[in-house]
Amino acid sequence: MALTANLIGDRQTFVTHLECSLTGERYEADRLHGLSQAGRPLLVRYDIEALGKALPRDVLEGRPTDLWSWRELLPVRHTGSIVSLGEIETPLVPIPASGGANVLVKDEGRLPTGSFKARGLVMAVAMAKELGVTRIAMPTNGNAGAALAAYATRAGIETVVLCPDDTPEINVREIAAQGARVHRVNGLIDECGAIVGKGAAEGLWFDFSTLKEPYRIEGKKTMGLELAAQLGWRLPKAIFYPTGGGTGLIGMWKAFDELEQLGWIGSERPKMFAVQASGCAPIVRAFEAGEEHAERWENAHTVAAGIRVPKAVGDFLILRAVRESGGRAIAVEEEALQRATAESALQDGVLLCPEGGATLAAWREAVAQGWVEAGEKAVLFNCATGLKYPLPDRSATLDKDNLPDLARL
Amino acid sequence: MALTANLIGDRQTFVTHLECSLTGERYEADRLHGLSQAGRPLLVRYDIEALGKALPRDVLEGRPTDLWSWRELLPVRHTGSIVSLGEIETPLVPIPASGGANVLVKDEGRLPTGSFKARGLVMAVAMAKELGVTRIAMPTNGNAGAALAAYATRAGIETVVLCPDDTPEINVREIAAQGARVHRVNGLIDECGAIVGKGAAEGLWFDFSTLKEPYRIEGKKTMGLELAAQLGWRLPKAIFYPTGGGTGLIGMWKAFDELEQLGWIGSERPKMFAVQASGCAPIVRAFEAGEEHAERWENAHTVAAGIRVPKAVGDFLILRAVRESGGRAIAVEEEALQRATAESALQDGVLLCPEGGATLAAWREAVAQGWVEAGEKAVLFNCATGLKYPLPDRSATLDKDNLPDLARL
Ligand SMILES: Cc1ncc(COP(=O)(O)O)c(C=O)c1O
Ligand SMILES: Cc1ncc(COP(=O)(O)O)c(C=O)c1O
Repeated sequence: MALTANLIGDRQTFVTHLECSLTGERYEADRLHGLSQAGRPLLVRYDIEALGKALPRDVLEGRPTDLWSWRELLPVRHTGSIVSLGEIETPLVPIPASGGANVLVKDEGRLPTGSFKARGLVMAVAMAKELGVTRIAMPTNGNAGAALAAYATRAGIETVVLCPDDTPEINVREIAAQGARVHRVNGLIDECGAIVGKGAAEGLWFDFSTLKEPYRIEGKKTMGLELAAQLGWRLPKAIFYPTGGGTGLIGMWKAFDELEQLGWIGSERPKMFAVQASGCAPIVRAFEAGEEHAERWENAHTVAAGIRVPKAVGDFLILRAVRESGGRAIAVEEEALQRATAESALQDGVLLCPEGGATLAAWREAVAQGWVEAGEKAVLFNCATGLKYPLPDRSATLDKDNLPDLARL
Repeated sequence: MALTANLIGDRQTFVTHLECSLTGERYEADRLHGLSQAGRPLLVRYDIEALGKALPRDVLEGRPTDLWSWRELLPVRHTGSIVSLGEIETPLVPIPASGGANVLVKDEGRLPTGSFKARGLVMAVAMAKELGVTRIAMPTNGNAGAALAAYATRAGIETVVLCPDDTPEINVREIAAQGARVHRVNGLIDECGAIVGKGAAEGLWFDFSTLKEPYRIEGKKTMGLELAAQLGWRLPKAIFYPTGGGTGLIGMWKAFDELEQLGWIGSERPKMFAVQASGCAPIVRAFEAGEEHAERWENAHTVAAGIRVPKAVGDFLILRAVRESGGRAIAVEEEALQRATAESALQDGVLLCPEGGATLAAWREAVAQGWVEAGEKAVLFNCATGLKYPLPDRSATLDKDNLPDLARL
């Protein structure tokens, strides 16, 4: 075995309980939970004071930098519950030409199965294993299903994945290749979610929908932890996050709180920008209307499949974080996100996924509107490898037996 | 900027000269070179003694683990020459079910542009920039072209890429998306290479073919350096490398020598296994015939595009390393490599590329033949993300308006 040193033995854990994100009601740790009684996501709580005493920051800094360096801030009790596929720290890549001198892409496509969904699902699967789950079902726009399939297969847990029938083809195929049973449904992700909910009510499987189980968010939280450590415990001025269910944004916001409680960062926060496509922008509409919850978006469409989420169960948590941070929810047109995606590849050699392209388009809009300054440090989340999405064919052909003037190539 | 600490300032460099890999003839450093007078690859030489004094191993171990932690062992003189896309250390992922308890996959698909070609090309492009090259051409089976396009674009160097017309579609498209001009040729990679050579002779561009410029091998060398460091300076018993042009194998072999000269490892070496597909196995044929050079393989075919290389300019270097190490060259059938690829995904959640699948098939063969023991630590190189290759469709459909018995999903 050549696992990271962070996975060699057990480490002390600090989970005290879970808490309803709406009512604050307490729930016992180390038991299987879905949503709270109030039908809202549960949040994991830690004894941060004890954690701070047990884990000096320089001990953390001496560890290998992968996701498991944060174990004391994570819910898994036993190393044996963890099935790892190599959850490395993702790099921050500057895009000076298509973005600006201080624009960094957090390249989440480097994670197992090619997306940041690995963070949430490695955690949720570990907890499912720890708590004795043997069968899981999940609705997905593609990437989450792929991550679930890989980790659950490895953990010996059976999985059923439902996705909209126009999910990017590679995603559907990789889910099946990695051992899950995958079904294409004539509906959007929330409609797939309803079927998963029905089966869960019938006792057929455990429901792994975004925020309907409490641990994916703890995994996604590591994006915030990692970012803080990578930037020397000084957060950027702005974060642009492509927002579907919003787990990552909510998770990072939670991470920053925990880091402040630890005294590892101060009280400043980045402006959080929730980025959506104009063809599916429920959070933006609610943000602009000053609402606390977001209504379902009808006839949702965008090439950025990962953010085609008409209705998010954590809507109020996303809106709350965005507002508290002084950020905004921004909708970008298809044409703008596709242009941004193309330009980042063409000018900076960085092939973003369309959702990542949306964050670049939103950053440009935010600069144009004066919501951020061009010179301020901004982090864009590219949540999946651009290789999962169709690219145009721009090749020429050449006949080796009848070569043209090579100077014209 | 949030670059790795390894790229913040210049570091001392130790290149003394270059050397013909066949004759030992010396060539001056810091000048543009192609092949040697003898038509063979040039190797970069360092003042290892001075390097050892300047860089204690524990200083290296205290650095961030990315590729640039090795700068003293690399040829680039000035940080300003380097265009980085985040060349992280790639993880070692166990595949206990489809391989065995001591089989580790070095998952090179995590590198920029989704393959290990990033290692070689980030280095070669940096040197090209340092030495004033403004136009590059290269033949490719796909992945190398994609890495070249990304780095050269970022360095402001113009690129022309030629690939066989049946190169995996994603590769062709990503090359163009990242700013190179790409041409599909009705021939194999050596035939593309001949056209590149012709243009170079006409002075149209600098020839970046595998081993025809001296620095890709230095980049690929980092696979060996990294592996040694990751495994606590104890090399594995066996390395299985999918071999096309063989740069990686030759590079690792060179790395081990340099590490031994530094006193960081001892004289033991892994058995090096050069893995090819039975439809294109020139190195295997030469190995078995006891030849020092390998003849061109006619009518080459295999789904593992990266190892479809009928003729390798570094053939004698590959064969020499394999023989010195006590390893072998192994050819695997298409069916065996496809089965291995499928099983690793299905049983371990690790989606290998077909070339990676070939190494797993070869490992199985080596165990069956008694060339390695099942319990010995073996490292398989998965040189690209499996997402670049077509997968079968194994999905079912589900009508949300007419649900079947969910228990049957
Ligand atoms: C590439 C990509 N970006 C963004 C998102 C949205 O993530 P979240 O659900 O955390 O808002 C997804 C979710 O599927 C995704 O796959
Ligand atoms: C995925 C993959 N594996 C293996 C190889 C062979 O590498 P090398 O040329 O170093 O032998 C290649 C080269 O294109 C590749 O793309």
